[in-house]
Amino acid sequence: MAEEKPDSLKCLIKELCRLPGVGARSAQRIALHLLDTPKDQALKLAQSITKLKTSTRQCKLCFNLAEADLCSICADDSRDRSVICVVELVKDVIHIESSGAYKGLYHVLGGHIAPLEGIGADKLTIDSLIGRARDAKVEEIVLAMNPTIEGDGTALHISILLEPIDVKITRLARGLASGATIEFSNSDTIAEAITGRGSLP
Amino acid sequence: MAEEKPDSLKCLIKELCRLPGVGARSAQRIALHLLDTPKDQALKLAQSITKLKTSTRQCKLCFNLAEADLCSICADDSRDRSVICVVELVKDVIHIESSGAYKGLYHVLGGHIAPLEGIGADKLTIDSLIGRARDAKVEEIVLAMNPTIEGDGTALHISILLEPIDVKITRLARGLASGATIEFSNSDTIAEAITGRGSLP
Repeated sequence: MAEEKPDSLKCLIKELCRLPGVGARSAQRIALHLLDTPKDQALKLAQSITKLKTSTRQCKLCFNLAEADLCSICADDSRDRSVICVVELVKDVIHIESSGAYKGLYHVLGGHIAPLEGIGADKLTIDSLIGRARDAKVEEIVLAMNPTIEGDGTALHISILLEPIDVKITRLARGLASGATIEFSNSDTIAEAITGRGSLP
Repeated sequence: MAEEKPDSLKCLIKELCRLPGVGARSAQRIALHLLDTPKDQALKLAQSITKLKTSTRQCKLCFNLAEADLCSICADDSRDRSVICVVELVKDVIHIESSGAYKGLYHVLGGHIAPLEGIGADKLTIDSLIGRARDAKVEEIVLAMNPTIEGDGTALHISILLEPIDVKITRLARGLASGATIEFSNSDTIAEAITGRGSLP
């Protein structure tokens, strides 16, 4: 008898269901856990969500998450300012950073072009990227969209806009994922691994 | 390079890790999802947690979650006031309610006796339960603790306290779980299913 649940509990379960990897049953489990959690601790979670969404803003330069006008990467003088890595979302910056392989700057588009979802190029930060690319100091733009139809489409759109500008355009390497097997890789991946084959390092 | 994550993000991930079924990777995934979620929607989640913990209180009678002095069950005149089902936590009330098999009142203990964790009988709402059991209208107390060592211990403790009072004491049936197989049931469960065997309904 779901009607025995107080409204505030039903409301929380509904909100939790929107989170990735949280279905109806885990949402109920988390909500019931929060019910029996000491008030202070449960409120800490609410406060950290609020803080994340209110005390942080977009970096004025690259649209990454920032706690000041510039994000910690744009503000860091040791980063290589001749390369800009263009990503779809803020979380992509965090994942690329955790690889430790990139030392340049970023540009967060805010998503990808998806006409069917009503997301046109004008909803992304592409204009601002073109402006940054015109800076004489910038030598390379790395297009690091996801290897999906929308990601590839967005990369194509941006590369056409960047063509008149004197800047090298690159994209992330395609091929077999580290730790993957040929047997279980899809045929597009295998095709790209063969096309892009190189000599042994 | 974890140090590239803003403090507010690291703080949220830490809080999310405390939730049941949420490990370090899911916590990061949920936090990064909230990063790219529209502000309104993310704040709604924070608000529903805050609302759950601030706008709700304990029922004065049974310590269930309530939005007024009495919870919706205690305030419901159609419930059978001669039976009190004693449970460990608020979530147990919700689970028993969802079975639809119980029409009496509840009493939420607030946990179980666990001397090793420093939870003595005095930290639970046992005194209040004894007071309720003395009411002449109450005919039966159902001890519905979890079938664990702590739950059984708490039930034993309460049953001793209730002995001088003229009230019937029962506990939830033990046996094979509905949908379980004998093959994969543990030996305690099988022993209880045999001991408690009954004639076909």
